[in-house]
Amino acid sequence: MNIREIPTPALTIDLGVMERNLGRMSERCREQRLGLRPHIKTHKTPEVARMQMDRGAMGLTVAKVGEAEVMAAAGFDDLLLAYPVWGADNLRRLGAVARQRRMLLSLDNASTAHELSRAMTAQGASIGVLVEFDAGLGRCGLEPGPDCVSLAKAINALPGLRFRGLMTYFGSIWGPEEDRRAEAERVAARVARALSAFDAARMPVEIVSGGSTPSAPLAGGIPGITEIRPGTYVYNDLNTYYQGVCKLEDCAARVLTTVVSTAVPGRAIIDAGSKTFSSDLLGSGPKSGYGYVVEAPDAKLIKLNEEHAYLDITGSAHPFRVGEVLTVIPNHVCTCVNMHDEVFLHRGGEAAGCWRVAARGKIR
Amino acid sequence: MNIREIPTPALTIDLGVMERNLGRMSERCREQRLGLRPHIKTHKTPEVARMQMDRGAMGLTVAKVGEAEVMAAAGFDDLLLAYPVWGADNLRRLGAVARQRRMLLSLDNASTAHELSRAMTAQGASIGVLVEFDAGLGRCGLEPGPDCVSLAKAINALPGLRFRGLMTYFGSIWGPEEDRRAEAERVAARVARALSAFDAARMPVEIVSGGSTPSAPLAGGIPGITEIRPGTYVYNDLNTYYQGVCKLEDCAARVLTTVVSTAVPGRAIIDAGSKTFSSDLLGSGPKSGYGYVVEAPDAKLIKLNEEHAYLDITGSAHPFRVGEVLTVIPNHVCTCVNMHDEVFLHRGGEAAGCWRVAARGKIR
Repeated sequence: MNIREIPTPALTIDLGVMERNLGRMSERCREQRLGLRPHIKTHKTPEVARMQMDRGAMGLTVAKVGEAEVMAAAGFDDLLLAYPVWGADNLRRLGAVARQRRMLLSLDNASTAHELSRAMTAQGASIGVLVEFDAGLGRCGLEPGPDCVSLAKAINALPGLRFRGLMTYFGSIWGPEEDRRAEAERVAARVARALSAFDAARMPVEIVSGGSTPSAPLAGGIPGITEIRPGTYVYNDLNTYYQGVCKLEDCAARVLTTVVSTAVPGRAIIDAGSKTFSSDLLGSGPKSGYGYVVEAPDAKLIKLNEEHAYLDITGSAHPFRVGEVLTVIPNHVCTCVNMHDEVFLHRGGEAAGCWRVAARGKIR
Repeated sequence: MNIREIPTPALTIDLGVMERNLGRMSERCREQRLGLRPHIKTHKTPEVARMQMDRGAMGLTVAKVGEAEVMAAAGFDDLLLAYPVWGADNLRRLGAVARQRRMLLSLDNASTAHELSRAMTAQGASIGVLVEFDAGLGRCGLEPGPDCVSLAKAINALPGLRFRGLMTYFGSIWGPEEDRRAEAERVAARVARALSAFDAARMPVEIVSGGSTPSAPLAGGIPGITEIRPGTYVYNDLNTYYQGVCKLEDCAARVLTTVVSTAVPGRAIIDAGSKTFSSDLLGSGPKSGYGYVVEAPDAKLIKLNEEHAYLDITGSAHPFRVGEVLTVIPNHVCTCVNMHDEVFLHRGGEAAGCWRVAARGKIR
């Protein structure tokens, strides 16, 4: 069966494209002597995590305890939970996973470390801790320098915890290649500052974890980084494409959608809205629109409601008709996947089953 | 247990506030002699639909076949599927529901009517059809006038279908009260034009369905409307509040979230991002920000990642600290609810169980 015959709207994955994406990142990490610890937040699917491990990933990255639970239950070990988890129940669940699997957690403050230690000892568990520093995004993380060392020492004084190294997120490395290159130099200076504080304290730093998909081509040039955590590269999306990090044909995840109304002049309405794409805006390139229509790139996906997307077709020669199936590349594939209970697989158009998105919606 | 003690992030519903919202809308519809067919897309929860029916709703509105299936399985009858469903499998499932329940479907073109007729006859089912016209939003719907009559006649000529009336969406009635009043007059003119075409054709129109939450206070002044389909009123949100349609204390749905990092100066990071709120922008009032922080309204929720929200706290005197629980009113409650597998209930703060969001994520 051709994949275009499945009920719409549906999120589809081209397996051949995905496998090529996985292979390229594995190869790049081998060449650059970087560990690859893919972030599963993009696919949220144990089947894909298995393919990443089979291609040489050293472990996985997850964002919430619920994601760790799904991946631990699927048999994976060496999980970095790259999030400063808070709350007695959340930490109790984390302790239960850490009893069974090697776990790392990142954090940036002593309160979280104390709560984590209490939860681990209550469960008879232990966990490795990475101190998060801010490489330039201004989200989480200490200023690189002596504060990181103080926190690392405080961590090592707490039962159930062991300082293993540093973590940061390269989210500020974004945009056209020249912007990414310039920011990678600033990030490298901040990484160096963090490491020199530990050098000065004669405190070894085993792991220095950084990364993201747009920074991956540059990560090998940031001295000290031992592993990277790209997520999006597995499927890619418009944000990746418009930064020049992938080609359109590398976008493995595409929404199949059907035109359901052409009654309003200049408009075609499709059966996929924010419940299918997510309402994430485009953060690169033209920074407007909600997706790329493969069959009619000159049609503009200008607005989303929950179940409707508005195509402005005034500039398109494509003869839109009700019942026609269109293919849309989403702006941001991570949030798009999170809307779907399952994804539908194909190889070059030939349907090949589906995967349950087992870690979808794990907000805790 | 106080609701603030549950694990975060979590979407909470204040039952007393919700019941007051339900009562007010029922009362308004009774006074204005309008049928109330609430759109379940806001709550997606059979328990709430039951409360709406118990307070005098005449039936329910759903957006996709999957929502109809959930509500039919929960025992509800008289369902309007306010969406021009396309696709053999989607229509087959619709036929299976229509065999068991009184169903209405809205559509705006003859192709959809033909496919619908084919599916209904294949299943030995029948369905009422509403012709959708455009009241001003420019999404779906024919121009009000003779085209609507032609489509109604075509529908009546098709086996398994019966023309029952007209449907439109009052989405263009939006914004401050003066804007909504002015637009309601334009909408009334378009409703009148649609009805006069049927008058001229001596074709009776049994149902004229319109509505939305922001238009509900004005719907009684639009002659010809027989029923309205508000959804958001059950919980309300910032979009409703900033239009002056509810007060802040009428917002029954609030996200409980915990501060997880204050490491970056001027920032507090909370454990709820776009996976918890959805990334819908604010469409009314200041049209910026991603939510209202009840404990610190002067803190600005300026940016979302999937698991992080960035609070700009430079203008706030509130002493943010890691581990602190904050309450956030979301921009758009329908898309927020759709992110959650369950909602947590309370009465004035005292925890009162949870509901599964049974119709969450039904994109087909």
